[in-house]
Amino acid sequence: MARRTKVYEGKAKILYEGPEPGTLVQYFKDDATAFNAEKRDVIDGKGVLNNMLSEFVMSGLNQIGVPTHFIKRINMREQLIRSVEIIPLEVVVRNIAAGSMSKRLGIEEGTRLPRPIIEFYYKDDKLGDPLVSEDQILAFNWASHQDLDDMVSLAVRVNDFLSGIMLAVGITLVDFKIEIGRQYEGDMQRLVVADEISPDSCRLWDIKTGQKLDKDVFRRDLGSLTDAYSEVARRLGVMPRNATPMTKPKLMN
Amino acid sequence: MARRTKVYEGKAKILYEGPEPGTLVQYFKDDATAFNAEKRDVIDGKGVLNNMLSEFVMSGLNQIGVPTHFIKRINMREQLIRSVEIIPLEVVVRNIAAGSMSKRLGIEEGTRLPRPIIEFYYKDDKLGDPLVSEDQILAFNWASHQDLDDMVSLAVRVNDFLSGIMLAVGITLVDFKIEIGRQYEGDMQRLVVADEISPDSCRLWDIKTGQKLDKDVFRRDLGSLTDAYSEVARRLGVMPRNATPMTKPKLMN
Ligand SMILES: Nc1ncnc2c1ncn2[C@@H]1O[C@H](COP(=O)(O)OP(=O)(O)OP(=O)(O)O)[C@@H](O)[C@H]1O
Ligand SMILES: Nc1ncnc2c1ncn2[C@@H]1O[C@H](COP(=O)(O)OP(=O)(O)OP(=O)(O)O)[C@@H](O)[C@H]1O
Ligand SMILES: [Mg+2]
Ligand SMILES: [Mg+2]
Repeated sequence: MARRTKVYEGKAKILYEGPEPGTLVQYFKDDATAFNAEKRDVIDGKGVLNNMLSEFVMSGLNQIGVPTHFIKRINMREQLIRSVEIIPLEVVVRNIAAGSMSKRLGIEEGTRLPRPIIEFYYKDDKLGDPLVSEDQILAFNWASHQDLDDMVSLAVRVNDFLSGIMLAVGITLVDFKIEIGRQYEGDMQRLVVADEISPDSCRLWDIKTGQKLDKDVFRRDLGSLTDAYSEVARRLGVMPRNATPMTKPKLMN
Repeated sequence: MARRTKVYEGKAKILYEGPEPGTLVQYFKDDATAFNAEKRDVIDGKGVLNNMLSEFVMSGLNQIGVPTHFIKRINMREQLIRSVEIIPLEVVVRNIAAGSMSKRLGIEEGTRLPRPIIEFYYKDDKLGDPLVSEDQILAFNWASHQDLDDMVSLAVRVNDFLSGIMLAVGITLVDFKIEIGRQYEGDMQRLVVADEISPDSCRLWDIKTGQKLDKDVFRRDLGSLTDAYSEVARRLGVMPRNATPMTKPKLMN
């Protein structure tokens, strides 16, 4: 394979130039980081699992008419995506209080919220991705009023769909984060779901036992992250039993 | 138990007065009808399965903030619901062409539509529930413009959620029908999802084999309806293995 041009290397993924203009190849690494990269590790097989789980969710979203950057999976670690201009906001949807919301607002972790709550965080690692208000977003021109409306619509639709997926396999979708990008076609723009949707970007609790099946297993040292992500993949029938991953994740637990 | 007042008996369900004002008890019968009741049969256990499957979907919708009439399941055949004023329209959402749409528009069954399409049918058995246009709905005052907007929003959210549920267990949500009712609180009204959401009101195809797991099994004489509905319930973990139904459906196939 010809040497590819690296466009960006982040904490969990690498972006390469894609085969066509306007496309990128998204490579999923095994690196895990938390607390703004203060805690780090390499988790054998995580990238493979996130690549396949993100494919499962994003291709499903495409099918129900929620636009995403996802075009197709290339191999166990890579997927072809549309290059978009990422809006510098992390969009978080919460169904149940947990993590930073529990801490900041003093709501006990596990409390179901009166309705799904949407929050925006300004994407800036140096600042620790601070929570921002809609008026701040408008004032600093990170997104327009129309963008905000569209982002909320996308976030609600992803929450509805992903809640259904998880409920069907006995998992509560506690919260998740998405990134949203601008896709240009001529002088038209539309907003699409970008980045990844995986156990790295969701909180997923087993409905019966409350067991955590997401990145909190890593953040809080609760056991094997690969086992947790594999369990999600197994329930969704995502990881083909006879797959030969480029690394060998423990597929079942 | 004291004798209850029957409010309505339909083809598939009976409504009784509920314990509190504004509530009803919805009883799921085993009767199956198709083609405007020209074809009929009694399918042992269907009512139990639909009661539990409708509970699964409606309680999930309530949790993600899509309002429904569902309050709680009472027993294997009955659930407590909020009494609403049913809008006389069947709201159909189609992701893939099938059934009457394939016939009327000459689109081969199984063709994925460019995007989910919403249709309204006027609820009138004598007329055979004819397709109606939005302008007809407005002109005959079956629903206001605002109602129509709200109905479309509800229909899209149910489609997103139900598509996720089904995808997660290897089933394609081809189409489904909902009924929507007005719930009054003082002089406020809000629209809520009513009636039932079950394999009687959906088209569900196994993703891998294309096998039908819905009422078409009955309409088209494709085998055991109980087996098909039980398969959906089994995949969703809905039918507890040690349940003692009031009738004895074959729980597994
Ligand atoms: N379709 C896309 N087009 C362009 N950029 C994208 C697209 N999808 C995701 N990205 C960006 O690619 C990067 C993915 O890498 P990774 O998730 O490892 O980054 P990170 O370390 O979390 O850092 P940060 O997200 O703060 O840049 C992110 O910057 C993300 O915003
Ligand atoms: N929450 C509710 N409040 C009041 N009526 C309801 C509610 N939910 C459903 N219904 C009505 O209860 C009846 C359910 O019975 P069933 O589905 O057997 O009727 P049907 O034979 O299909 O006939 P039809 O739907 O045309 O009345 C339907 O008329 C439906 O519109
Ligand atoms: Mg990132
Ligand atoms: Mg009916």
